[in-house]
Amino acid sequence: MIALFSEKIRFFDTTLRDGEQTPGVSLKPAEKLQIATMLADLGIATIEAGSAAASEGEREAIALIADAGLGAEVATFVRALPGDIDDAVACGVDCVHLVVPVSDLHIQAKLRKTRDAVCTMAWEAVEYAKDHGLVVELSGEDASRADQEFLAMLFAGGVERGADRLCFCDTVGLMTPELVAEQIPALLSAPLSIHCHDDLGLALANTIAALKAGATAAHVTVNGLGERAGNTALEELAVALEHLYGVETGLRIEKIYPLATTVSRLTNVPLPTNKAIVGEMAFTHESGIHAHGVLRDASTYEPLTPESVGRTRRIVLGKHSGSASVGAALKELGYHCTEVQHAEIVARVKALGDEGRRVTDADLMAIADSVTGVSSAPAITLRQATMVSGNTVIPTASVTLLVHGEEVTCAATGNGPVDAAVEAVRRAVAGAAEVRLEEYRVDAISGGTDALVEVTVRLSHEGRTLTARGARTDIIMASVEAMIAGMNRLIEERR
Amino acid sequence: MIALFSEKIRFFDTTLRDGEQTPGVSLKPAEKLQIATMLADLGIATIEAGSAAASEGEREAIALIADAGLGAEVATFVRALPGDIDDAVACGVDCVHLVVPVSDLHIQAKLRKTRDAVCTMAWEAVEYAKDHGLVVELSGEDASRADQEFLAMLFAGGVERGADRLCFCDTVGLMTPELVAEQIPALLSAPLSIHCHDDLGLALANTIAALKAGATAAHVTVNGLGERAGNTALEELAVALEHLYGVETGLRIEKIYPLATTVSRLTNVPLPTNKAIVGEMAFTHESGIHAHGVLRDASTYEPLTPESVGRTRRIVLGKHSGSASVGAALKELGYHCTEVQHAEIVARVKALGDEGRRVTDADLMAIADSVTGVSSAPAITLRQATMVSGNTVIPTASVTLLVHGEEVTCAATGNGPVDAAVEAVRRAVAGAAEVRLEEYRVDAISGGTDALVEVTVRLSHEGRTLTARGARTDIIMASVEAMIAGMNRLIEERR
Repeated sequence: MIALFSEKIRFFDTTLRDGEQTPGVSLKPAEKLQIATMLADLGIATIEAGSAAASEGEREAIALIADAGLGAEVATFVRALPGDIDDAVACGVDCVHLVVPVSDLHIQAKLRKTRDAVCTMAWEAVEYAKDHGLVVELSGEDASRADQEFLAMLFAGGVERGADRLCFCDTVGLMTPELVAEQIPALLSAPLSIHCHDDLGLALANTIAALKAGATAAHVTVNGLGERAGNTALEELAVALEHLYGVETGLRIEKIYPLATTVSRLTNVPLPTNKAIVGEMAFTHESGIHAHGVLRDASTYEPLTPESVGRTRRIVLGKHSGSASVGAALKELGYHCTEVQHAEIVARVKALGDEGRRVTDADLMAIADSVTGVSSAPAITLRQATMVSGNTVIPTASVTLLVHGEEVTCAATGNGPVDAAVEAVRRAVAGAAEVRLEEYRVDAISGGTDALVEVTVRLSHEGRTLTARGARTDIIMASVEAMIAGMNRLIEERR
Repeated sequence: MIALFSEKIRFFDTTLRDGEQTPGVSLKPAEKLQIATMLADLGIATIEAGSAAASEGEREAIALIADAGLGAEVATFVRALPGDIDDAVACGVDCVHLVVPVSDLHIQAKLRKTRDAVCTMAWEAVEYAKDHGLVVELSGEDASRADQEFLAMLFAGGVERGADRLCFCDTVGLMTPELVAEQIPALLSAPLSIHCHDDLGLALANTIAALKAGATAAHVTVNGLGERAGNTALEELAVALEHLYGVETGLRIEKIYPLATTVSRLTNVPLPTNKAIVGEMAFTHESGIHAHGVLRDASTYEPLTPESVGRTRRIVLGKHSGSASVGAALKELGYHCTEVQHAEIVARVKALGDEGRRVTDADLMAIADSVTGVSSAPAITLRQATMVSGNTVIPTASVTLLVHGEEVTCAATGNGPVDAAVEAVRRAVAGAAEVRLEEYRVDAISGGTDALVEVTVRLSHEGRTLTARGARTDIIMASVEAMIAGMNRLIEERR
């Protein structure tokens, strides 16, 4: 069933304005430009680069993006104030997203004005902006709680005075698809954008409903970033329109994931574990039953290929792991087992998973070695590790390792005791193998200072990479343990 | 606009089964019971406690919950296999969630069977389960991609053989509200549940659409936990039904947040920053403009009160912070400033925010002191800190602090060097003030071992609490810095 949509749906991205209003998020001008460039490259029609009146740094960022020749329309948020519009002009943007409160609640409680005063402000601002050669998108804040007749009147007056586009803002995420379908058709005196928030989890559904009801553009943010519960997610809307409604968005969908990770890194807002399209687990499979299906035909448990959004599939092992996925992992690591050995390995993987642990490559290899009777004497054993640090001391570590039976002691300094200890381990092993630390990761620690800390490392050696883990209440020793576990596995392979 | 729903919508929670299938998540029996007890207390009708055939540990957990007399119906996932149903009976559950693949893709690619064989298996399993006195919910896996006539036939045959309820599983999240409205009405030969996944972000909208189309129960998980992008979120469905559709769910909505945080803690899956209802930021306000509105009337930027879901509002400061929210925070901390001082404080808060930092209480107090010319000599100064740790050493720390001008040196051991250092600081200050460490938090560290680590502590002293932060490449020194910054602020207050 193909729903009726306008011929071409415009994507208006507000990651750099509404997204950046997430408490604690702050992007530097060069970072904003980096994201804007990726958005333009994805095919976004309009990029709202910021709020021109906010600060000097903000204006610098907006001007940088407006000047970059990205090929996308560059907009800035403004209030219905001549000063804000002057700021927009000074930044050199193409378009103003001119926002006026339209619900009585916002008009009275926030602005302490009347409907008439708001209309006058809005209309004068539209004329002022048009006089300055700007494209004007006139936006009703809290439109979902506004008197819809008043809103239609305000919009029509704005269009009369030159507004090019309109926007319906569901500012606190109170709309339903039913309400959207009811209210939008009466507001189409010019091309209309829909701007939804996800406070009750319906931003995407409301956005789609509005596009079906006659809206021609959607406001979105990367990863659904934004105040409170965030905005309609760019990636969800793009993929839902393409895959579920047969709409050609014209966006380069395969560039979505690199954009998502860049935004996450620059804003310090982690990608949620379970988020659609971009979440850590969105294309990861554990369950025995399901991974079994995925190994036979990935579409059994995937709505679209991970590659189509720039990702790769991951099969991980744990308590639910079935025989098929353990077998696939063993094969990849180069093990050949009998059926009996295989069953025993599966049982031990499940037992480790039962303890609530993700099973790393090093864990699986240790289990497989033990079950298949392969000599399990590790190449590297830790004899001692000592770390000293403080505010008047350069963080220093020494380790003594037994490497292929030979005792090696090395010391190193670092930016902190973890850095020093990891470097000392690397040096001690350097004679036997040049191992690189590709990734170091500690999950968030919360609770007390004596909580268990889990460190995961990804190491590489001659083109092979693998993951290993250490878990201790001492973050330094957990790091050392993870390094040694991983190195042992990489080195053993060579014998 | 009130949509038409069935008189009473049943909530079928599968956090402990589908939610637990999130890769890396594993709950111990006692943890499962703790969550089940909270679910029952919330008013959930059916609790799917696990998958009886999965493992011995899983059966132990299911039996524990079935025996606990929680007042909710307890169910287990089973395949259409007599052995699975025997396991269910042994666990003492009330109900089996009997899942059979119904799309040709699943029947052929995963099971390598025919439609006829699946029907026979399903119907025999229904009869077998009914013979054992179980409530049977017959569930079509990948129903959204099934031939709908075949599905209706399979369902009707199941109902004939005694199935009490049916369930439509949108296993890979491919449904739209339009498709749901079209397909569900033909499947209502018994009360029907809807089970949605959020792969394309529409799980909630599809669930609501199904309930409008005649389904009477919804499968949900706490925090939307589940494989890949997760399932329909319990909290989103409950709040959307109550607040947007005027449906009385009978659930104790105000208990949602404690449940959400418990599930997050026990599963180690963090609550997403921007998630509806339960996300860290869902009731947090930063932006100057918006916090201004919230301070005048919270409903301007809140769709419902945080208290209604068991939370509290938070106003945080940052680069977008306006005058009003800084003023409110200063007032709360007991500062009285002139207008000029106030403007300067706002400017400095914005500057700190521009660096991408959240502004803690201690940061604001430092700024306010400096601007108002209050003596800013801190009560506590760090003279030296030294930490030793390793695998053959008990983690030990010594610190020398100047406390109210007097030099105090203390040493402590701990579970790790951070624990030892924090304890040494606490001891050194104990003579001046008994400060408790209420919360210790490190955000996820990824990148290298030399990444900047940000430690946030919440300290309390005589009924007051405040937050402070330390940021260093050395996690131990960052912790010490945060402790001292916070203690200084708590102690200064007393002079």
